[in-house]
Amino acid sequence: MWDRFLRACRREPVDATPVWFMRQAGRYMAEYRKIREKNTLLQICRAPELALEVTLQPLRAFPVDAAILFADILLPLEPIGASFEFAAGEGPVIHEPIRDRAGVEKLRPFDPEEGLPHVLEAIRLLRRELDGKTPLIGFAGAPFTLASYLIEGGKSAHFLKVKRFMYSEPALFHDLMGKLAEVVRRYLRAQVTAGAQAIQLFDSWVGSLAPNDYREFVLPHVRHILADIEQTGVPVIHFGTDTGSLLELQREAGGTVIGVDWRTPLDEARRRLGDGVALQGNLDPILLFAPKDVLLRRVDEVLERAGGTPGHVFNLGHGILPETSPDAVRLVAEHVHQRTAH
Amino acid sequence: MWDRFLRACRREPVDATPVWFMRQAGRYMAEYRKIREKNTLLQICRAPELALEVTLQPLRAFPVDAAILFADILLPLEPIGASFEFAAGEGPVIHEPIRDRAGVEKLRPFDPEEGLPHVLEAIRLLRRELDGKTPLIGFAGAPFTLASYLIEGGKSAHFLKVKRFMYSEPALFHDLMGKLAEVVRRYLRAQVTAGAQAIQLFDSWVGSLAPNDYREFVLPHVRHILADIEQTGVPVIHFGTDTGSLLELQREAGGTVIGVDWRTPLDEARRRLGDGVALQGNLDPILLFAPKDVLLRRVDEVLERAGGTPGHVFNLGHGILPETSPDAVRLVAEHVHQRTAH
Repeated sequence: MWDRFLRACRREPVDATPVWFMRQAGRYMAEYRKIREKNTLLQICRAPELALEVTLQPLRAFPVDAAILFADILLPLEPIGASFEFAAGEGPVIHEPIRDRAGVEKLRPFDPEEGLPHVLEAIRLLRRELDGKTPLIGFAGAPFTLASYLIEGGKSAHFLKVKRFMYSEPALFHDLMGKLAEVVRRYLRAQVTAGAQAIQLFDSWVGSLAPNDYREFVLPHVRHILADIEQTGVPVIHFGTDTGSLLELQREAGGTVIGVDWRTPLDEARRRLGDGVALQGNLDPILLFAPKDVLLRRVDEVLERAGGTPGHVFNLGHGILPETSPDAVRLVAEHVHQRTAH
Repeated sequence: MWDRFLRACRREPVDATPVWFMRQAGRYMAEYRKIREKNTLLQICRAPELALEVTLQPLRAFPVDAAILFADILLPLEPIGASFEFAAGEGPVIHEPIRDRAGVEKLRPFDPEEGLPHVLEAIRLLRRELDGKTPLIGFAGAPFTLASYLIEGGKSAHFLKVKRFMYSEPALFHDLMGKLAEVVRRYLRAQVTAGAQAIQLFDSWVGSLAPNDYREFVLPHVRHILADIEQTGVPVIHFGTDTGSLLELQREAGGTVIGVDWRTPLDEARRRLGDGVALQGNLDPILLFAPKDVLLRRVDEVLERAGGTPGHVFNLGHGILPETSPDAVRLVAEHVHQRTAH
């Protein structure tokens, strides 16, 4: 059943639980490392043929039920005027972090076809390649996660600068979040128009916030995006990490599917979120390093906690780490299908 | 009321909500930085007069209701045979990380009076200084947090090595955790004997674990420690971060007080944990960087969610950051007292 992933997102009956992996295309695969030898991450993102190739690599290697466009959540920053680079071993570095009103006002409106034509072209190529075989997921980073990078200037341990900005200049912070939400909305709309059959919104850093901060500073902006994208009819996966105290609010903000990290058992997530939403997750990515019997026992536990009903997309609780063995990834994908086929 | 902190831990009536701050002695204070100019962190820990002085600094500056011994959670590692240093800008570096059975077996039993006499001497000095004025909290790192440092060799982003060890060598991992639990138990017993009037167990990294891993690999070892220390009659604060999915299990493991990080509102923690335990927390430490009106509004919200009943110790949801203004710390301590006095 080629569309079991899309059906599960909509809580329709499936022949087996669908499975894909966050960061399923990446450094843990020799095929990917070979392409990276001659190209930087951003060069791959900017060349539709390379992005196509890298997106397809895990589909050739493992029986996954969805493809996810190879790209980076920071890509929309460059066309709105916030340039950045990936410094060796340090992650992203924003050249001019946002510190004041001038920094917020400087950000330009975003036209996806003009600003990121190669991403949309990669989606069109992928759809031609995958049609009727594997659904294609597009994605974007959520406003708080993008704002964190823009304000912190890169990765952060405590999110001191972004939270200080948020508490000290709440109106200006809302302006920034509103601008970013509109960037993300347009970007995801354009991805759907180009052919993305589902969307994942990554709010990677939102778990650093207390629920009242999420409600005040994040929820309205995420809702602005998701309400619009859900109108296109494609399923939307709303994912964050460290969201044990935020799940209900994330659900309120929107999404056809809530992506749950490994810390919250799926039966608990189901109890808290009700039956009106699908769930994605949530094996601890480090279990891919465990002995086979331990790994499969824990995969079975995730499946059991998901309740054996439609409305579950099997995934990790976070992205695949570069040190992961491809054999473990294959084992899990095959096992999920075998165990749930009927 | 000099003992309002101890009374609140025991859920007895108090004249005002007690307040102290995790990492209340530290780099954010000019007095501390002056001592650090001529002494490393470990030199301060090893000189009882310096540890005394640094412990007293926040008590002179702010109306806090408890002193916490100045020390580091890694101190017991050296006397059991795991030497380490603090590398500039990198945090702790364990010289020979534990990777196998030989590494676990090499760890020596711990005699606190022999291995860390200066810590116990600092406690005795402090008690003489503080008696009848301010209660003294002793503390230790919990076994999982210590095991993480020992196996990872330092700080870690994903806890790959410690979790892989745990999944691959569960019996050996339990051996290590059992050894560390006994180290911590003896260390805390010795601190109580020396005069500590309350104990905090810091399980800083335990929030990286899913609940079933916590139940299997951590809970029995923490219970071994806390059951014993609670027999001494001193209150025990059981603290971790990222514990939104673990609070019930932490409660099961023990503690007179559960320390809650800022992500879980105290009314939710109370609902989940019941009335039989006190709560400590839980202002986001970054709120100390917010404008005064925002800060005080959020302090009030913490107090409200705590329910105005006995059984609340006001604190942050994590330690004070070095960039924090001492004025904000003073403001919060004074405000908590004013707002709750009766």
